[in-house]
Amino acid sequence: MSLRIGLVGLGTIARAQHLPAIAATDGLTLTAIASRNATLEGVANHRDVTQMLGDVDAVSLCTPPQGRFDQAMAVLRAGRHLMLEKPPGATLSEMAVLEAEAARQGVTIHATWHSREAAAVDAARDWLATTRIRAVRIDWCEDVRKWHPGQEWIWQPGGLGVFDPGINALSILTALIPGVRLVGADLHIPANRQTPIAADLSLDAGHPIAAHFDWRVTGGETWQIAFDTDAGAATLSEGGARFTAPGLETAGENREYARLYARFRDLVAAGDSDLDLAPLRLVADAFLTGRQHAAPAFEDNP
Amino acid sequence: MSLRIGLVGLGTIARAQHLPAIAATDGLTLTAIASRNATLEGVANHRDVTQMLGDVDAVSLCTPPQGRFDQAMAVLRAGRHLMLEKPPGATLSEMAVLEAEAARQGVTIHATWHSREAAAVDAARDWLATTRIRAVRIDWCEDVRKWHPGQEWIWQPGGLGVFDPGINALSILTALIPGVRLVGADLHIPANRQTPIAADLSLDAGHPIAAHFDWRVTGGETWQIAFDTDAGAATLSEGGARFTAPGLETAGENREYARLYARFRDLVAAGDSDLDLAPLRLVADAFLTGRQHAAPAFEDNP
Repeated sequence: MSLRIGLVGLGTIARAQHLPAIAATDGLTLTAIASRNATLEGVANHRDVTQMLGDVDAVSLCTPPQGRFDQAMAVLRAGRHLMLEKPPGATLSEMAVLEAEAARQGVTIHATWHSREAAAVDAARDWLATTRIRAVRIDWCEDVRKWHPGQEWIWQPGGLGVFDPGINALSILTALIPGVRLVGADLHIPANRQTPIAADLSLDAGHPIAAHFDWRVTGGETWQIAFDTDAGAATLSEGGARFTAPGLETAGENREYARLYARFRDLVAAGDSDLDLAPLRLVADAFLTGRQHAAPAFEDNP
Repeated sequence: MSLRIGLVGLGTIARAQHLPAIAATDGLTLTAIASRNATLEGVANHRDVTQMLGDVDAVSLCTPPQGRFDQAMAVLRAGRHLMLEKPPGATLSEMAVLEAEAARQGVTIHATWHSREAAAVDAARDWLATTRIRAVRIDWCEDVRKWHPGQEWIWQPGGLGVFDPGINALSILTALIPGVRLVGADLHIPANRQTPIAADLSLDAGHPIAAHFDWRVTGGETWQIAFDTDAGAATLSEGGARFTAPGLETAGENREYARLYARFRDLVAAGDSDLDLAPLRLVADAFLTGRQHAAPAFEDNP
């Protein structure tokens, strides 16, 4: 019997990734959409998540994290399973409330981190298990105007700023290396904004980890994690799609969202949940303890 | 057999609260002190926590949270039980590392929240259980120059600012009311400082909770939590020492630290831990999602 799933939010990420991944996943059937300003043929279309609950066994939320708590609670209180696009919520405290409600209802909650499913992450994990890490260097640098054109919410309090992409790096890091803690952070916040446009993190897991996140890079965008190990240098690049180490190069097709939906289906079948908040916890720690620096004002259309 | 305990940090709070409380607790014996600039008669005096570990079964850390991680790890790795003054650490991620290490070693870790042990908190809990809360209002307002004269660390990144006292209010709140989440925050940060001198929090637990923390109050200092309930108005005041409700007034002697040490002793005896991070999580959420406002520069000696 197929699990009837509904999708809330029908923006770019939903159309590019979620819809094809659901269609490609055995045992899942998209039966409803909730969106204020978009519709999809062939399924029930609703304006609001509460109206869709009769049509579904599970709900996948792709809306921005700031307004998501009420939607998530409505899903759980109706006894429906819940899958969350990253980051899973706006705060750690609301995630604790959702976790408790999911347990109370006996339903699955799955906080997804799509970058963990990138093509070469498993290969990196396997190779790293054969050696000892001495140090790690993360560079996650991109052009915010290209990836978030006109998106005001990323600059609002809680919008995470450059940590919106940076949390993807942290999600891979914490999947590869246990016990990562934040030691210090420098946050560069534009004078006319509330969230950082760049950040440097000092982390530790028995060896040092440095991370540089920058949204001001217009040429030579980079999403990579470099490992200095006893067996030589290795690099997970292209956001996790490619891994190179001495004598090894691996890359593959992007199946991130297909893997996430297959895992959600399996979690529901097994009656389990997967709510790893380590990436969001590191971001919260960076805001909690980071040193703030004033950066030049940022305008979307300079 | 008495548990041999060592104290790290011999500052104001250690002398005023920890030493008398340990002395008053059956089953605990102070056997060592670690301090860089102070000594105590009648016990082994060390400069550093690592040197004291042979003299003790358990260690209580009273040092500021920013430099505490290495000390805490040294204690746990030596298989000693660990008690932490509030706040338990500088970050949530380091607390997760400590929790894992304590579990690995099979020792007790106890993150203490002294305000939860204030004289009237239990009476407040009992009374609130008989009614329904409609709304809560917290006012935690004091004079920073009086309580933290010349203490630069409170203004450094990670020093928490006004959340250093405010987290006491949040520790009481989360002990009385489950499922509290942060909805929004306004942080007022002096132009020459890194941490807030005042903060307004909007919280929710099925009913609204408003909190006002202010370090600029020189007359009429206030540490109180006011409850609007179906049974009328009630107030927990004087930092938790007094509770008033319709037909009820209760207050008592301050035994906060004696209660903490008795609980630590019992946790060790039972092989349990108590590591409730909910108060620190709410503070991290406030930094993560709070709107920042520039406040006038603050000088210790204006």
